[in-house]
Amino acid sequence: MSERKTDLALEVRESFPRNNVEIQGVVLEKHYNETAKAHITTVQIQDDRGSRAMGKPKGCYVTIESEDMPKEEEDKEELLLCICGELEKMVHDLRQKSVLIAGLGNRQVTSDSLGPRMAECIFVTRHLGRELGSWFMEENEYGEVSAIAPGVMAQTGMEAVEILQGIVKKTSPDLVIVVDALAARSMSRLCTTIQITDTGISPGSGIGNHRKALSKESLGVPVVAVGVPTVVDARTIISDHLEKVLSKQGYNEDEIEKFIKEVFHEEMENLYVTPKNIDESVNVIAKDLAKVFNHCFQKKSL
Amino acid sequence: MSERKTDLALEVRESFPRNNVEIQGVVLEKHYNETAKAHITTVQIQDDRGSRAMGKPKGCYVTIESEDMPKEEEDKEELLLCICGELEKMVHDLRQKSVLIAGLGNRQVTSDSLGPRMAECIFVTRHLGRELGSWFMEENEYGEVSAIAPGVMAQTGMEAVEILQGIVKKTSPDLVIVVDALAARSMSRLCTTIQITDTGISPGSGIGNHRKALSKESLGVPVVAVGVPTVVDARTIISDHLEKVLSKQGYNEDEIEKFIKEVFHEEMENLYVTPKNIDESVNVIAKDLAKVFNHCFQKKSL
Amino acid sequence: MSERKTDLALEVRESFPRNNVEIQGVVLEKHYNETAKAHITTVQIQDDRGSRAMGKPKGCYVTIESEDMPKEEEDKEELLLCICGELEKMVHDLRQKSVLIAGLGNRQVTSDSLGPRMAECIFVTRHLGRELGSWFMEENEYGEVSAIAPGVMAQTGMEAVEILQGIVKKTSPDLVIVVDALAARSMSRLCTTIQITDTGISPGSGIGNHRKALSKESLGVPVVAVGVPTVVDARTIISDHLEKVLSKQGYNEDEIEKFIKEVFHEEMENLYVTPKNIDESVNVIAKDLAKVFNHCFQKKSL
Amino acid sequence: MSERKTDLALEVRESFPRNNVEIQGVVLEKHYNETAKAHITTVQIQDDRGSRAMGKPKGCYVTIESEDMPKEEEDKEELLLCICGELEKMVHDLRQKSVLIAGLGNRQVTSDSLGPRMAECIFVTRHLGRELGSWFMEENEYGEVSAIAPGVMAQTGMEAVEILQGIVKKTSPDLVIVVDALAARSMSRLCTTIQITDTGISPGSGIGNHRKALSKESLGVPVVAVGVPTVVDARTIISDHLEKVLSKQGYNEDEIEKFIKEVFHEEMENLYVTPKNIDESVNVIAKDLAKVFNHCFQKKSL
Repeated sequence: MSERKTDLALEVRESFPRNNVEIQGVVLEKHYNETAKAHITTVQIQDDRGSRAMGKPKGCYVTIESEDMPKEEEDKEELLLCICGELEKMVHDLRQKSVLIAGLGNRQVTSDSLGPRMAECIFVTRHLGRELGSWFMEENEYGEVSAIAPGVMAQTGMEAVEILQGIVKKTSPDLVIVVDALAARSMSRLCTTIQITDTGISPGSGIGNHRKALSKESLGVPVVAVGVPTVVDARTIISDHLEKVLSKQGYNEDEIEKFIKEVFHEEMENLYVTPKNIDESVNVIAKDLAKVFNHCFQKKSL
Repeated sequence: MSERKTDLALEVRESFPRNNVEIQGVVLEKHYNETAKAHITTVQIQDDRGSRAMGKPKGCYVTIESEDMPKEEEDKEELLLCICGELEKMVHDLRQKSVLIAGLGNRQVTSDSLGPRMAECIFVTRHLGRELGSWFMEENEYGEVSAIAPGVMAQTGMEAVEILQGIVKKTSPDLVIVVDALAARSMSRLCTTIQITDTGISPGSGIGNHRKALSKESLGVPVVAVGVPTVVDARTIISDHLEKVLSKQGYNEDEIEKFIKEVFHEEMENLYVTPKNIDESVNVIAKDLAKVFNHCFQKKSL
Repeated sequence: MSERKTDLALEVRESFPRNNVEIQGVVLEKHYNETAKAHITTVQIQDDRGSRAMGKPKGCYVTIESEDMPKEEEDKEELLLCICGELEKMVHDLRQKSVLIAGLGNRQVTSDSLGPRMAECIFVTRHLGRELGSWFMEENEYGEVSAIAPGVMAQTGMEAVEILQGIVKKTSPDLVIVVDALAARSMSRLCTTIQITDTGISPGSGIGNHRKALSKESLGVPVVAVGVPTVVDARTIISDHLEKVLSKQGYNEDEIEKFIKEVFHEEMENLYVTPKNIDESVNVIAKDLAKVFNHCFQKKSL
Repeated sequence: MSERKTDLALEVRESFPRNNVEIQGVVLEKHYNETAKAHITTVQIQDDRGSRAMGKPKGCYVTIESEDMPKEEEDKEELLLCICGELEKMVHDLRQKSVLIAGLGNRQVTSDSLGPRMAECIFVTRHLGRELGSWFMEENEYGEVSAIAPGVMAQTGMEAVEILQGIVKKTSPDLVIVVDALAARSMSRLCTTIQITDTGISPGSGIGNHRKALSKESLGVPVVAVGVPTVVDARTIISDHLEKVLSKQGYNEDEIEKFIKEVFHEEMENLYVTPKNIDESVNVIAKDLAKVFNHCFQKKSL
């Protein structure tokens, strides 16, 4: 159903009519992390068949869903530690690696500003090793971290991938982490879910088309993408609500599809549904993600 | 239909099933302003019957709908002049009046920040007359203008009306203008329509409940409210789309109502649909409204 | 020496040639708080003679000087607790009082934005008691707190005192706390010192002239002023440096005065010296002050 | 006199005791542009001898000094046209060139944020040609423009030069323009003077050390640096004032030097003098510079 748009592999998987039947080439695993109070789902797309079925590149997609935005500092810490753990599982030996952390998106558009805001809070160290020597880094157990917010094409005239290719070539990190705001299908996942994937980011994903693929192929080093949904496309939410009601009323799939097509108007392009407190939420999540990376790479306390 | 929420009297009027039939106590007038390329609709609520039918206080509601956000400076100027003209028609002798311009809303929430942003751009003069003498004001043809952004209750612990009552009592303006972001029912009116009313602002209107009534009754001087829709409540947009489709399919009004009720979920409370470029649009409109007031009260060029 | 400008009573006291000799009507007390690592100085101006000598209203001025901006969270907490303690000593029974906290200054001018930024972080509760009832306040041990950033005259056309008089009359708090950025004489006190006084704020103090006196006389309730120096007037710093050098070289007081007068040019008006990281420092201090008030009035943890 | 710090070649030239005597290898030309009401000074450093004397690389330094920040739109336009003219004289055929415009500096530090703010206002077009074809660019007479704010080393862990080398290599512009906030020696030049030079930017210049040399040597394409002074180092202003007074009093150069050394304290490092309205001024100048570039490269009206 082309009207629905989501960047979460988990939601693509859920969209298959019979959720429990296996899709060939796609392995789904779920568990609950008691300490972090989070549901963790791993979607493995193992071959081209799985990739075609899911409409996403081969690779591993981990989704961490918090039951609720933790209010207590202590609970928050456990959740962030859980995210650190999943990152470590995906990459291994994070602290041994030199890393470039790129915050994608548009600083001037609230719902798309997660990446740039996160980048502002990264504790960068790459220059310290170069200025003070490697003993300084070792003594402080600092990894080599650099950070950039490459902006969006409408601001720079360049693809994010062009900028990052140039920087990666020049500074040779072992690993690139790209952080971006995502579109989800379910309102309840906004600002409460995080997706980590070793596939990088593909064109057409995310809430804008502000990049071509950022991946090992294009950048030459492993790329881990970390995203949090901040918007639901208005068409998506309407489609989903309609589908539920219509199928209850006995409509079949084709009829539902036809009904939904009639509902949509041109004017609904580029309309996004956000929670009212999106400004504040994006700020908090940007800081939390930066804490996660500062902890993973620099042993900074959470 | 209680699910739909709009602050535009025009949209309330349109919502009546048979748009062309007269509602008693409500007079509707429309005309097109060629120069400004704007549709101007005046809704007069003349008595209690009209007030009950419309769910809004008695008074005059003028809506100026621009066909499109003017791209050319010249067209923009004509539109702003048209708004000035409608304000003058409603208030008379604007330049003779001392005025307090209040920008309502939350500076930290993009879609609700129209008022505070506008207030930042007002050319205030009240203090100049007091410091330099009335000759200075006369020579420059300055009216007496003060401006305030009283904030929202969650930030101040006070109702906007309490703050404004205090300030009005202390500074005794002839007129209060309150500017606020509104909720519309139609996406196409977002950031393209302006409503001017001599009724002030009633509780429960607007996109948050950030005030009790701001009116001649509560403040003791005439209150003109100026608003621009920046959000559509997600329920509203879905309801409206459904209604069109269902009535085409032969559903009657009661069936439609029932269908729509089934669609909604708790999670849709407090969800707003905004255009993607809302951050930029709110900025532009805030400056434009300030230009309108600076022109009306101070002869500043547009 | 009229060229020197400071809002700190402590610095006025220090400016007297023979620092150790008593000034009649002025009592000076110093002690060191080991836990908070802070020097606390109390200047009591007891009568009109002292007031004339000091050029400041009668009352109590407490200065808390941190040796260094604490880097560790724990040390920071001790310092903030020390500030809470001094506030409590000055006012008594803070938690029994309803309070209006006013953040003075201009949000758009970094060095003057301490007050408005602080106000954004206050945990306001006044409306909660009114909406939910007094049981809610008692159960949570909340005091009744409201907050406002009245802006500066060039933005509002009104004196801060007019706005606050109106609001105080309407909302009747027991106490007003005004927070403002100050000018100091010594660079080393920028962003490291806090002054608390029960005299309110007098005209001509502070880094701009953005208000007439805010005091018990003008507002009708006790007014405590809390300020942190963020700028040194360029004339002041130059005067002070010159004085040191010239007196070493055997110049007498009159000669020094004359020398300094010659140094100054018109163009030095309105020039301020700030630390390079002033943007960040003001942010941190604004949040710290808000924490102090949230702790004093609401038992919020620091 | 090592205490004085300026990025303006003009001020270095002025600092030589006998301003009118020729310095070998340095050619000075001045004229007054009536229409723009601006003094234009060209300092040509022609050989190594001149370079050593001036402490700056060989090349052409053009300074445009506006008598006053123009208040009228029309006067402002003439000034901006004059800047366009000087840029064109230095580079030739601007509209035929593909250009990368880099806004250096720290967005979070007001006085250092000129570059990043300017970059936000550039009308970028490089991607349009790539997406829509060259006919689109020709029809609109658009040059190929891209823009970037590479941030400062403390935020990214990378030198600005590393980031720009990477991007230039990847996107191959004909020309790089770097925009930066400068330090001046004279207060009266703050926010009123612009320097354009074909030498790029050398290490240690500017108000922070946020880069290694950005020049044709390091980037491989011609680099034009455009700068506006936003700060005076506190030591510089004091030194200059003292020098004037002391030389009037008959002190000789060595004595003056010695006197000044005594005045300085460690605590004066990293202290900057800025005009009080620096926040607003930087904003205005950033937009004006962007207008200049948008006019030069895209025929956008000023």
